[in-house]
Order: sequence, then structure tokens, then C-alpha cells
Amino acid sequence: MKFLVVNGPNINMTGIREQGVYGARNYAEITAMIQAEAKRREIEIEVVQSNIEGEMINAIQRCYFENMDGLIINPGAYTHTSYALHDAIKSIAPIPAVEVHFSNVHARERFRHESKTAPACLGQLCGFGDYGYVMAMDALIQHLSSKH
Amino acid sequence: MKFLVVNGPNINMTGIREQGVYGARNYAEITAMIQAEAKRREIEIEVVQSNIEGEMINAIQRCYFENMDGLIINPGAYTHTSYALHDAIKSIAPIPAVEVHFSNVHARERFRHESKTAPACLGQLCGFGDYGYVMAMDALIQHLSSKH
Amino acid sequence: MKFLVVNGPNINMTGIREQGVYGARNYAEITAMIQAEAKRREIEIEVVQSNIEGEMINAIQRCYFENMDGLIINPGAYTHTSYALHDAIKSIAPIPAVEVHFSNVHARERFRHESKTAPACLGQLCGFGDYGYVMAMDALIQHLSSKH
Amino acid sequence: MKFLVVNGPNINMTGIREQGVYGARNYAEITAMIQAEAKRREIEIEVVQSNIEGEMINAIQRCYFENMDGLIINPGAYTHTSYALHDAIKSIAPIPAVEVHFSNVHARERFRHESKTAPACLGQLCGFGDYGYVMAMDALIQHLSSKH
Amino acid sequence: MKFLVVNGPNINMTGIREQGVYGARNYAEITAMIQAEAKRREIEIEVVQSNIEGEMINAIQRCYFENMDGLIINPGAYTHTSYALHDAIKSIAPIPAVEVHFSNVHARERFRHESKTAPACLGQLCGFGDYGYVMAMDALIQHLSSKH
Amino acid sequence: MKFLVVNGPNINMTGIREQGVYGARNYAEITAMIQAEAKRREIEIEVVQSNIEGEMINAIQRCYFENMDGLIINPGAYTHTSYALHDAIKSIAPIPAVEVHFSNVHARERFRHESKTAPACLGQLCGFGDYGYVMAMDALIQHLSSKH
Amino acid sequence: MKFLVVNGPNINMTGIREQGVYGARNYAEITAMIQAEAKRREIEIEVVQSNIEGEMINAIQRCYFENMDGLIINPGAYTHTSYALHDAIKSIAPIPAVEVHFSNVHARERFRHESKTAPACLGQLCGFGDYGYVMAMDALIQHLSSKH
Amino acid sequence: MKFLVVNGPNINMTGIREQGVYGARNYAEITAMIQAEAKRREIEIEVVQSNIEGEMINAIQRCYFENMDGLIINPGAYTHTSYALHDAIKSIAPIPAVEVHFSNVHARERFRHESKTAPACLGQLCGFGDYGYVMAMDALIQHLSSKH
Amino acid sequence: MKFLVVNGPNINMTGIREQGVYGARNYAEITAMIQAEAKRREIEIEVVQSNIEGEMINAIQRCYFENMDGLIINPGAYTHTSYALHDAIKSIAPIPAVEVHFSNVHARERFRHESKTAPACLGQLCGFGDYGYVMAMDALIQHLSSKH
Amino acid sequence: MKFLVVNGPNINMTGIREQGVYGARNYAEITAMIQAEAKRREIEIEVVQSNIEGEMINAIQRCYFENMDGLIINPGAYTHTSYALHDAIKSIAPIPAVEVHFSNVHARERFRHESKTAPACLGQLCGFGDYGYVMAMDALIQHLSSKH
Amino acid sequence: MKFLVVNGPNINMTGIREQGVYGARNYAEITAMIQAEAKRREIEIEVVQSNIEGEMINAIQRCYFENMDGLIINPGAYTHTSYALHDAIKSIAPIPAVEVHFSNVHARERFRHESKTAPACLGQLCGFGDYGYVMAMDALIQHLSSKH
Amino acid sequence: MKFLVVNGPNINMTGIREQGVYGARNYAEITAMIQAEAKRREIEIEVVQSNIEGEMINAIQRCYFENMDGLIINPGAYTHTSYALHDAIKSIAPIPAVEVHFSNVHARERFRHESKTAPACLGQLCGFGDYGYVMAMDALIQHLSSKH
Repeated sequence: MKFLVVNGPNINMTGIREQGVYGARNYAEITAMIQAEAKRREIEIEVVQSNIEGEMINAIQRCYFENMDGLIINPGAYTHTSYALHDAIKSIAPIPAVEVHFSNVHARERFRHESKTAPACLGQLCGFGDYGYVMAMDALIQHLSSKH
Repeated sequence: MKFLVVNGPNINMTGIREQGVYGARNYAEITAMIQAEAKRREIEIEVVQSNIEGEMINAIQRCYFENMDGLIINPGAYTHTSYALHDAIKSIAPIPAVEVHFSNVHARERFRHESKTAPACLGQLCGFGDYGYVMAMDALIQHLSSKH
Repeated sequence: MKFLVVNGPNINMTGIREQGVYGARNYAEITAMIQAEAKRREIEIEVVQSNIEGEMINAIQRCYFENMDGLIINPGAYTHTSYALHDAIKSIAPIPAVEVHFSNVHARERFRHESKTAPACLGQLCGFGDYGYVMAMDALIQHLSSKH
Repeated sequence: MKFLVVNGPNINMTGIREQGVYGARNYAEITAMIQAEAKRREIEIEVVQSNIEGEMINAIQRCYFENMDGLIINPGAYTHTSYALHDAIKSIAPIPAVEVHFSNVHARERFRHESKTAPACLGQLCGFGDYGYVMAMDALIQHLSSKH
Repeated sequence: MKFLVVNGPNINMTGIREQGVYGARNYAEITAMIQAEAKRREIEIEVVQSNIEGEMINAIQRCYFENMDGLIINPGAYTHTSYALHDAIKSIAPIPAVEVHFSNVHARERFRHESKTAPACLGQLCGFGDYGYVMAMDALIQHLSSKH
Repeated sequence: MKFLVVNGPNINMTGIREQGVYGARNYAEITAMIQAEAKRREIEIEVVQSNIEGEMINAIQRCYFENMDGLIINPGAYTHTSYALHDAIKSIAPIPAVEVHFSNVHARERFRHESKTAPACLGQLCGFGDYGYVMAMDALIQHLSSKH
Repeated sequence: MKFLVVNGPNINMTGIREQGVYGARNYAEITAMIQAEAKRREIEIEVVQSNIEGEMINAIQRCYFENMDGLIINPGAYTHTSYALHDAIKSIAPIPAVEVHFSNVHARERFRHESKTAPACLGQLCGFGDYGYVMAMDALIQHLSSKH
Repeated sequence: MKFLVVNGPNINMTGIREQGVYGARNYAEITAMIQAEAKRREIEIEVVQSNIEGEMINAIQRCYFENMDGLIINPGAYTHTSYALHDAIKSIAPIPAVEVHFSNVHARERFRHESKTAPACLGQLCGFGDYGYVMAMDALIQHLSSKH
Repeated sequence: MKFLVVNGPNINMTGIREQGVYGARNYAEITAMIQAEAKRREIEIEVVQSNIEGEMINAIQRCYFENMDGLIINPGAYTHTSYALHDAIKSIAPIPAVEVHFSNVHARERFRHESKTAPACLGQLCGFGDYGYVMAMDALIQHLSSKH
Repeated sequence: MKFLVVNGPNINMTGIREQGVYGARNYAEITAMIQAEAKRREIEIEVVQSNIEGEMINAIQRCYFENMDGLIINPGAYTHTSYALHDAIKSIAPIPAVEVHFSNVHARERFRHESKTAPACLGQLCGFGDYGYVMAMDALIQHLSSKH
Repeated sequence: MKFLVVNGPNINMTGIREQGVYGARNYAEITAMIQAEAKRREIEIEVVQSNIEGEMINAIQRCYFENMDGLIINPGAYTHTSYALHDAIKSIAPIPAVEVHFSNVHARERFRHESKTAPACLGQLCGFGDYGYVMAMDALIQHLSSKH
Repeated sequence: MKFLVVNGPNINMTGIREQGVYGARNYAEITAMIQAEAKRREIEIEVVQSNIEGEMINAIQRCYFENMDGLIINPGAYTHTSYALHDAIKSIAPIPAVEVHFSNVHARERFRHESKTAPACLGQLCGFGDYGYVMAMDALIQHLSSKH
């Protein structure tokens, strides 16, 4: 099993920006944690980050071309505007995708309540900090194994 | 550790109603699964269901009066209209709550995209069927242990 | 054939409240009239009333558990807000439901024009006073017989 | 007693267009059924159809000029836009009007939920196919006899 | 003179929940204060609380059936959504009702600015903490005596 | 000088329908009054009425083809929906048009406040009953003479 | 007969500001024209102008205190926002008021289409330049004489 | 203790305008009643009225410059539009302000439901006629004494 | 192959009205051009124009009754309001329809951006003047031949 | 060169009200600073303040009548509602105006994001405290010199 | 003559993603077809694709810097959000642009009905699959030749 | 002191595109002017431009990683849609940012009135052409020096 984690704009600033909102762990530590948790579950994971919407689309499309089993995506602020990411996730169907947010988007500004990308995903979770990536991993594993 | 699971309107019809949306497992099976997973994690869990909004509020308030450690809530269709449930969850702060939905609410009718209750919770997750309850349990455990 | 009539909030005040809007016959008289008309059509009918949204859901679910043939529902003011009642009616599909209102809701305040529950029903009728229950009965009979 | 049935745009295509929505009986059969049911009730009925909004207004005004006792109107898609039909129905007051739709408009596109014409009518019914015309007849008879 | 005080969802958590918003006095103290102030004014008062919308409607209807002289209602979060409570207050007309809120609802979230229930009342007041109940009492007394 | 008066849907019911809104004079009397006032001003006037939107467009286009000097239009309920009438009035530019309404549309239902046709006209007036046609005539005469 | 003409903000800049919109005649000339037309009709007229909303209200109230017969008001840009002017015109009822605008407000920015003040008036007219004041005078004379 | 009462546009027409809405007592009588009630409570009160929004702001600012203890304000129709009054009330913080309306604004036109000024106040009350000023006085006294 | 071209309101004024928007060629020249282009493609074409919405529906229905192969429709201003035309095009399915506009509707007033009729068509094109009819012809030919 | 600075409602309370938002310098100090900066640039400047919208319009009009070279305006809370100020600024065209706000209006309540007056100005600036007046001065000087 | 075809996000997934919506031909085949059709018309064409909005802007700007004659653009999901692409197309004026969509955007989700980019183009077409590129080519050729 | 100037999409087309809106000076000249003005103020400045939203985010983040003192940003059309840029500016807090626009965005299309990025900045200015960059520089210098 191989999953791709695609992190969007400003996620690389975690630990620097607004720690009250996004937590104090920096991006390198989070990536290491994700890899460690993947290893514990005996799955392969690749983590990419880009501030560029179109490069995120390129990455999503790689799931299809490289036969990956699942996508975990944190589209950052593009969540709330990007129909292009929505369409990209749809274009790799039926590969399942899980949308993750560090913060509880529903408890923040009104514009963060609506996700343009979530409708193209299997599910969405938010508010659990970087532990959300682990939950997403478990959800994908559960989903894929329940289909066999 | 003790958690309360509060299930709202029509959740008791799972396995009967719209199986394509909510899955084929019936409500008794889901409750049993939740209890089994709780036992595996060595936590205590109580599961209640009511179609009556105010009885759900009564249940939520019990978290405070009975010193429970966390709340898992699936407010069903009240999610999208109930400020009273929102206020109830706020009233038991700082006991953490996790909102769970079987279906990916973002991929359904427009009115299901907005949650009135999620802003009062620690986080929200949706789209993972009854496995969502297990994820919520793990999230609460992770949250509570990270605070010590 | 057995139908359930579920009357919602304040319907029990008919004949007392705003007679210009809801008519002068009181609730006991209306119930008696419904039973008389059911007898004339040789069908069985049960009439319940509750001011509590969740108890109405309980009643609707009884249609499924007690194998009734049809539902006539006057959700009162919950018509305009209750996705939970909508989901309850959907959960007993394919049992047909007819929504009834005493008054012509389209000729009243703007908020009464939209029904959250009607999309889950076979059809809706309004403006015919308590005679609407008779029309609903006839519509259900016609619908059920046309399917054989 | 004499009633006028005014059918609006595309009603003449019933049985041809979208049978899943409007039923399989063709327009001639429906007209014949209406006449048969009228005869059974010993009332006179005239059925007209036009795709032209203004001709429908002409027909509605005939109710006043020809002293008819009631109007049954299916304004088709003009239901959702025509203040002119609304005003026409108002202009023949106090002759009672009943609005009929084949399909359950509340279960279809959002624009079909609002009726511009219903506020000028005694009542509205929808979702009962061509049987709706019979219900409308009964409602008018009931209404007119209850006033004596 | 006899008044009924109907308190809605989560009002029983006063003194526990969000003290900055609702004050530090607990619900039992507030009830006692109301009774003391009623005694000083030589009126009879009954105070009920329920988290269940429909039970609040039941209580409101008791004003009519038990010939009470006035209603003081704090509908809590149902204020902003409940047309059913609105209709219930209307159904007991001409018994006067006064709507009370602890907090200044206009200074809080947008959804708390609109009251669905206030249009059915004599008047509304908010922002004066539990003293609001005393003001409501005085307003009812003044209103009833000015009518004689 | 020759003007065309185009009256829209239900204007022919004036004196019959809602006299409190539209006045008690019937349509024939109004037409006669318009002709008398035109004669007093030594201008020629033609008055047409149609319930059919497209026939009104045909009439408007006649202004161009028959070299008339001005248009007085009372589009009735089409005022609030008809971009087609708007475009028709624009299509005969620079022939000036004046929009007239019997009633003060701003004091009625919200939908009557907006005119789709007025932006294509020289000006609009409303609320002066059938005297509005005389004012429109004077306005056109004044406008045309001020241009020489 | 005595009428008051109340002109609002920036009307005194006519002939200076945006001549394409408001015409080239300056404010003194317009006032003189109004007086001349009043004299021709043997009525008394007083013309006031203020940029201050509250002074306009003071002027409107004078109609009541000084027993004037009619009000002609051009509220300028306050037309689109001032409920206070609306209430002031209502407060002098049944003295009739006519609202006048130089330009065709319906052909300009969207915010100028809605008038907050017109619902309190007998009627409104716009688009006829300063001749609109003359039309308003005639409308008031016609209205007052038709009531005797 | 000294309070300032600031009354806004058209309040001086009370007893003249729309008596069904605002009551039959005239403005001088209301002012006298307020003074009498103030004397009974042994507080000093000053009552001002202006139709001019900016003069109301001047008055509000006097609370600060003249060290008054509280403000009672009835902003009339400016309630629904004036951010400037809102800011003025905020500018004299922490002097407490109470907003008063004669009529139940929630039972009137939609635009009267929203108050731009109330968020800057301690609280708001409406629907109690001129008795509202007395209630506001009591609320301020209660508020100020509870702070010591 | 036989196609029907249905032109809506004011299209007959092309070459007369707003030449900057609709071009300078008159309607007869455009019709002739369409016929010439049809002949070049060896298809039969019939061109009709009506200002009456309902007559356009009649024409659309002829496509079904006369077994035509395709519909080209320029609904003019009815594009933006007519659900009846939408339903008419749907009623003749699966006969393909192409919607054509002379001007680029997206570069004009906001109301012209939304088409009520396009969802019922195969496709839409706009902004190419009368050449749009030729493109529509080619699109229909391409579509029909690609289905064989 | 002579500029007029027009300050609107509550600006005179700067240094008193909400210092976190508007800064701690009082209004007299700000005025002195503006004059000092003007002197450094060898231009003449006049600073006026009024809480009355109409007096601000009077001041703006003085720019035209007294041949001033530029206007700097801080309309305070009127910014967000006053079409009358907008029209006043337009009426003195082509005299350039610059709109200034102490605080960053875009970072505050939603209603402060929209300026009704800015469209009539050369430009707008906000968020720079009282230094904004100096920037506005420089912008006007730059603008006027670039035109020669 | 040289045209540039700019294809936006996910267009490279055609033939892979949602074939029911976008067709079964893959992107390489579509590109080849476009080149073949260009050759038949003896024009030069260059086709580029990018998932990155800003790279699409770079491409559009090349039309200006490389003196191309026309632009054909399929902005994919950026169509509905990108004012930046709109401004880019405007920035190369007067080079004509045609917007193309495979699917009939008007028959899909509501957000696809509005195009932010079309107002900057000569015209738009949608619903004709990859044949739309050929139609766009013809439209540009026709447009450019009609200008000589 | 070192500032970064980040220019967004199509700013490089200044002098080419819509000169009436953006001015006639080309981008190289503007950059040179900015450098010259920086030198006069003895500060260091770096100017970058990109059409790619994500590259702009990369640039903004450099302010943090390279310890710059301030950011001047002209986000072009991304201003009105980009929450990602907003979050990027927030992520480098407390480094101050100033938003600049050549044109007066408030006097243009409605969508340009709202800035998604300005709330994250110290302040915003618009309408002063390329001189706006100089003003922004002065504002940053003033802001930074006032903090010491």
C-alpha cells in the first residue's frame, strides 16, 4: 500500500505561524512523525508540499499515473476556493482521498466552513492537529481493507 | 476514562434507511462494535440515542454532572439547525467533544455542508461510516493524553 | 389498509388559536371527522399529535415497524425547519407520505412557503382546512391501488 | 356548477415528455378522465390548454365574464415566474381557484419550490399525477358547499 | 395575577456555563430571586425549565388552559429558529408574553440578532442578566393594569 | 404628434378587480378619458391592451415602423420580470417612452418595487391612478418640445 | 392651497454637478420656475433645501404644524437609505406627498432603484428633469380636488 | 446619579403619528412622566430630542464630557442604519447605555428587526410603550448598583 | 436532415436596434445567409421568429411532431427568465438543441449571464454575431454524424 | 495650493475612544500635526470636523465655491452608508479627493469593508493612523503636479 | 495566421477522468485532431496545457509578445474563479479570444454557470466536446477576415 | 532596513494593458522609479513579480526567512480571491505589510471592492498609480520608526 500526502500553501510554515491555531511542532517534525506512523502500519507514504495550486494538481494526478492506493490532502487555504483541486481529485477516482485540516475550520472565519474539495473526497476531518494525518491513514487502511 | 456517545435523530434507523448513504450494518451491530473497540482501548463508553433534540441536550449535560472525559456526538439532521445543541456542548467546556457523521456531508445536499454544532467541538469528521466512531475515540484519547 | 396521521406542534390548539387562519372546528371534532371518513372508506386510521419534534419522528418510524400502508403528516411549524422530520420520512421509504396544511401556506409569511419535509413525501396539499386530511386519504388510496 | 381547467405550457406534451416525472398517460386521455370524473360528480367542466401566458390570462378572465364557479389551474413552468397570472387569478376574486401540479414540485429543482400563483388561490396540491385534477374538483365542491 | 416563566435549553446551566456571558449566579438562586421578587409584588409565579422545545410548547399552552395572566419566556437558543414556539405564543393570545435574554443578543454572533419568537410577544428585553425577569414582571403588571 | 399607449395584462379588468388598489373607473371609461385629454392637447393617441407579452412587443415595435412620436406603457405585472419588453423599448430608441402605474408600486409587495422596463424609458411615474396617463402625455409633450 | 417643496442633499448643486445627469439649469432658476408655475395654477408654494437629513424632517413636520395641503419631496441620495424620512412623511398623514427625482433612477446604479421614502408617499415620478416638480404639483391638485 | 435620555427622529410626533403603533400620549406628557419617575427614584435626568443624527451624536458625547452615569437612547429610525450612533455610544464607554423602543420592532417591517446601535449598548428593550423609559431607568440603576 | 431555427423577441429588429451590440445586418439578410449556408451543407432549414414566448414553445414542439433532426434557438431576452422554454426543449428530447446569442452575453448586464434554457440544450455559443447560426449548424451536423 | 480636511462623526473623540483602534493622540494634537506637516510642504490647509452628515456636505461644497485644490476626507462611520457624501464629492469634480481612515477597515467588522464614498474619490488609504493625513497630502500634491 | 490554444487544469486527464462528462478521446488524440484541423484551414496553431493558473497567464501574455492572431482558451475549473485570467486576456486586447468548454457547463453544478473569464473574450461556446476547438478556430478566422 | 515588493499577475503588463486604468509607464520604468525612491530614503528594496499565486507565497515567506523589515504587495487580481495569500502574510507576522493598487478599486467592478488580503496587512492604499509604492514605503518607514 502506498499513500501520497499533499500539503498545500503555508503548511510549511507550521510551527512558525499562528501557533495557537496550527500547533508548535514544525513542518520537518510533522513529516517525520507521519513517516514513523506509516512505518508502524507497514505502509509506504510520500509527503509533498507546495504553495502552488497547479503543482498540487500535478501531485494529485501522480496518484493515478503511479498507481498509488490513497491520497491524503491538506489543501490549506485553497480548500475554500479551488474547484480545480476538486476536479483533480475527481479525475483520479476511484482512488480514495481524505481531506485533513489541523484546525477546526468550523470554529474559525465563515469562509473556512465551506470546502470546495471535500465533496470529491471519501471523507474529511479537522481540528485534531497533526494527529489528523494519522487518523486519515487509519481511515484509508480501514476503507481499502473493507472493500476486499 | 469515560466517554459518552450521543446519537441523534434517525440514527437508530441505520441499516434500514438509505443503505447507500448510511451503510448496511444495523444500529445494534454498530453499538456492539463501538463497545468492542472501547474495550480494546480499555476505556469505558456509554452509547445513547434519541430522536428528541432536548433529550440529547440532557445527555450532553450529563457529561458535566457525571464527570465524563469526552463526548462523541452524531447530531444527525439537527447538526444543520441546532444552536441549542451548540450551546449545550459549549456549556460543558472544557470537556472535549468530537462530531461524527457516517456520510460525507460535503458531498450531499447544500444544507448538510454547514454544521451549527461543530464550532463548539474539538473537531469534526465525516464520511467514514461507523468507523468514524472509532476514529473519534482515538482522537479523544490522543487529545487527552497530549494534555498531560 | 392502515394509515397513520401525525399532527405536529399547536395543531391541538385548532379551534382555539387564530380561527381566521385555521378554522373554528376544534381538534376533537377534527379527529372524529377523520375517523368517520376513514370508516366510510373502510380503512383503518390512527391519529396522533405531539408538540415534540422527536416524538413525531418516533411516530413516523412506527409506520415502518408496524407495517402501516401510508402516512399523513401535518408537521405544523416544523415544516419549515426540520431536516430531521425530512430524514425520518425518507427512512421509512417506500411507505408513501402526504403532507397536509390547513392554511394556504403560500399566501402567508415568506418562511411558510418553503417546506423542508415535502421533498420526502409523495405529495403535498394546503389551503383546504381540515378537509385536507380527507383529500390526503383519497390520494393515498388512489396511489396504493394504482400500484397494483 | 361549472369549473374551468386551465392547463399551461407543455402540459399538452404529457405522455411524451419525461414520463418518469409526468406520467405515461397522454393529454387526450387525461382530458377524457377529467370529463368522466366531472360527469360522475354532476358538474360541468371545460378544459383548455395554451402555451401562451397571455392566453391563459384571457381564459382566467372568462371565469368572471361567464360566471363560472371555480378555477382549476396548472400553470406549468409559468408557476414560478408569472406575477401576471397571479394578478389575473386575483382579478376574478372571489371565484375560488385551486393550483395543481402533476409532480411533487418540492422534490425537484429549487426554482420549482416557489409558486408565484399559489398565493392568489384557495389552495395548492402537487405530486398526485393526473389524479390531482380530481382532488381539486372535490376540494372546490367541498369549499363551495361549505359556504352555503 | 399569575404568571408563568418558561426557560428554555441550557438555562439550567447558568452559573456553570460561560459565566462571562450569562453571569455567575446559578439557576436555583435565580429561581429563588424570581420568587422573592414576585412575592414583593404580591403576584403568583411559576417557573419551569426544559431543554425540549415541544415541552416548552406544552407549558405555553398551559397558560391558556389554566387561565394564567401572563407569560415570561426565555427561549434560549430556540429563539433564533423556532417558528413552533412563535405559533404557540400566538395560539394563547391575547395573554401577553415578554421575551427575556440574559445577554445582549445584539452584541453576539449574527444568528442571535434575529428572534423568531419576539414577533408573537408584547415586547422583548435583553442584556440585563437575571434582572431581566424582574423587568419583565413589572412590564406585564404595568401592561395589565393599563388595560383596566 | 402621435403617441401609442400600450396597456398590459389585467389592465382591462380595472374597475372590476381590487378597486381599492386600481380605482373604480372601468377600462372603457379610462380609455375615453385618455382620448378626451389627448384631444384637448391636440395630439393623436392610440390605446391598445393585451394580456400577451409578445403582442405588447409587437405594439411597441409599431412605434418604430409607423413613425410615432412617443410611447406610454403600463406593463402591468410584466414590469417586474420582462427583459423582453425592456429590450423592445430599447429597440425603438430614440422614441421616448414613459412608464405608468395606477398604484404606488413602492407601497406594495417587494417584487413590485423593481422595474425591469423602466431603465429603457425616459421616466416613470406611479401612484396617481388613471391620471398618470395624462401626466405621461404632458411629460412627453414637454420632452419633445424642449428638444426643438 | 399651499404646498411645501423639500429638496435634499446636493440639489443645490444642480447646474454645477454632472449636467448630463441633472440638467444645466441652476438651482435658482429651477426655484423661480417652480414659483412661476405655482402662480399660474393659483396655488402657494414654499421651496426649501437642506443637505441635513434631520432638517428635512423638521421641514416635513412643518406641513403638519402649519396646515399645508401637500408635500413635494426630492430626497436626493437620502431616498435610498432614510427610514427616518419615511417615518416623517408617515407622521404627517393624511397630508399627501409626491416624490420627485430629476433623473431616471431606474437607469442608474442599482442602489438608486430602491426608494425607502416612496412607500410613505402618494406616488413617485422620475426622469423628467425639473419639469417633474410641475407634474407633482398637478398630481397633488388633481388628487386633492378628486377627494371633494 | 445623572442620566441622559436621547430621543431621535420623529419621537416628537408621538401622540400625533400612527397612534396604533406609538400610543396616544403626546411627547410633552411622556417627558413629564419620565421626569416624575426619575424624581421618585431620586435621580437626575435630562431629556433631549433631535431629528438630526449628528446632534444626537453631540448629545451622546456630552455624557462623557459632563460625567453622566448612564444613557437611555431611542434612536428612532436611525436604529436600523446608523453605524455613526453605534460608534458614538462605543466612544463613551464604559458609560452604560440602554436602547428603548416604544413598539415591538420585531413585529413590524423586516428592516426594523436589526439594530445597528444595540451592540454598543448594555441592553435593549422594546414593545412596552413609554413605560420602556422607566424600565431602562431601573435597569441602569440596578446595573450601576450591582457594580459596587 | 432538417433543422428548425427559432428566433425570439426583438430578433426581428436586428440591424435596427443597438447596432453596436447586435450588428448592422438586417433580419432578412440574416435569414437569407442562414438559408444559403444550409444549402451549401445540403441540409434543409426552416427559420421562424416570434415575440410571443408561447408561440416559440409551439414551434419547438413542432420539432417533435414533424420529426425534425435538430433545433437552433436564440431565445432573446426570454433566455434569462423562461423555465417554460426550458421545459419545452426538454419535452422534445432526444432531439438536440443549440442555443445561440449574437452578443457575448457574459460581457453585458449581470442578468444576461444566466441562461434558463441552456441546461436543456446540447450546448450554447455566444458572441459571434450572425455567424453563430452557422457554427450551430456545424455543431448539430457534427453531433448527429458522430452518433452513427 | 489649498486643501480642505473634512473629518466626520466621532473623529473628535480620538484619543478618548477605543485607543487600541484609533490611537492615543487626541484630536487637537492630530490637527496640530496636520497643520505642521502642511506648513513643511508650503501648502495651506483647513481642518473641519462635524458629526452631522449634512454639514460635511456643506463643507465639501465649499471646495467648489472657494476654489480649493483638493479634499481630504475621513467620513468616519458615514463611509459605509452615505450615498449623499458620495454625490457631494462627485458634485465638486474635478477637484480631487482622498479618503483616509485611521484603522485598517478591512481587518474590522464586515460592514466597514465597503465604502460608499471611495468610488467618488481619487484614491483611498487606511490603517496608517493619523499619518494617513500626511500620506493623503503627499498624494494630492503628487497628483496635482503630475497634471501640469 | 497563428493561434494559441491554452488548456487549463485537468484537461490533460481527458479520456481518463469522468468520460461521461468529458468524452473518451485522450488528450494526445485531441491535440492531434486540433493540429489536423488547423492544417486543413492552413493556419498555424500551438497547443499548451498547464495546471498552474500563473503559467496560463504567462502563455496568454505570449500572444502579445509573439504577435499571435488569436487565442483559444479552455480555462477548466479556473473559469469560475479566476479574475487574474480575465485580466490577462484583457491585457492582450485587441487580440481576440474564444473560450471553449467540452461539457455544457450550464447543465452542471451551479458554480459552473458563471464564467469570470468570458467577459474578456470575443465569445464563448460549450457542450460540443473536443469539436468545440474546431468551432473556435472557425469563429476566429471568420472574425479576423470580417474585419478586413 | 530592507523591504520586499511583491507584484502579482499582469502587473508586468503595465504600460501595455488598459492604460486608462493602470497608467502609461511601463513595468521597467516603475521598477526603476521604486529603486530610485528607495535609494533617496536610504533603504534597500527588492522587487519581484510573478503571475503564479504560489510563487508570490514563496516570496512572502522569504521576508521571514531572510529577516526583511517590511512587505509591499500588489496582489493584482488575486486580491479578491486569495485566502492563501492572506494566510501567507499572516504567517510572517509581525513583519508589517502594505497593500497597494494602481487603480481606485472602489470605483471599478463590484468584485474589486473586497480584498481578501488586506485584513492581514497593516494598511491598504489604492488609486494613486505607481506613486502608491512610494507612499507604501513612507508608511512602512513611519510605522517602523514609531515603534522604537
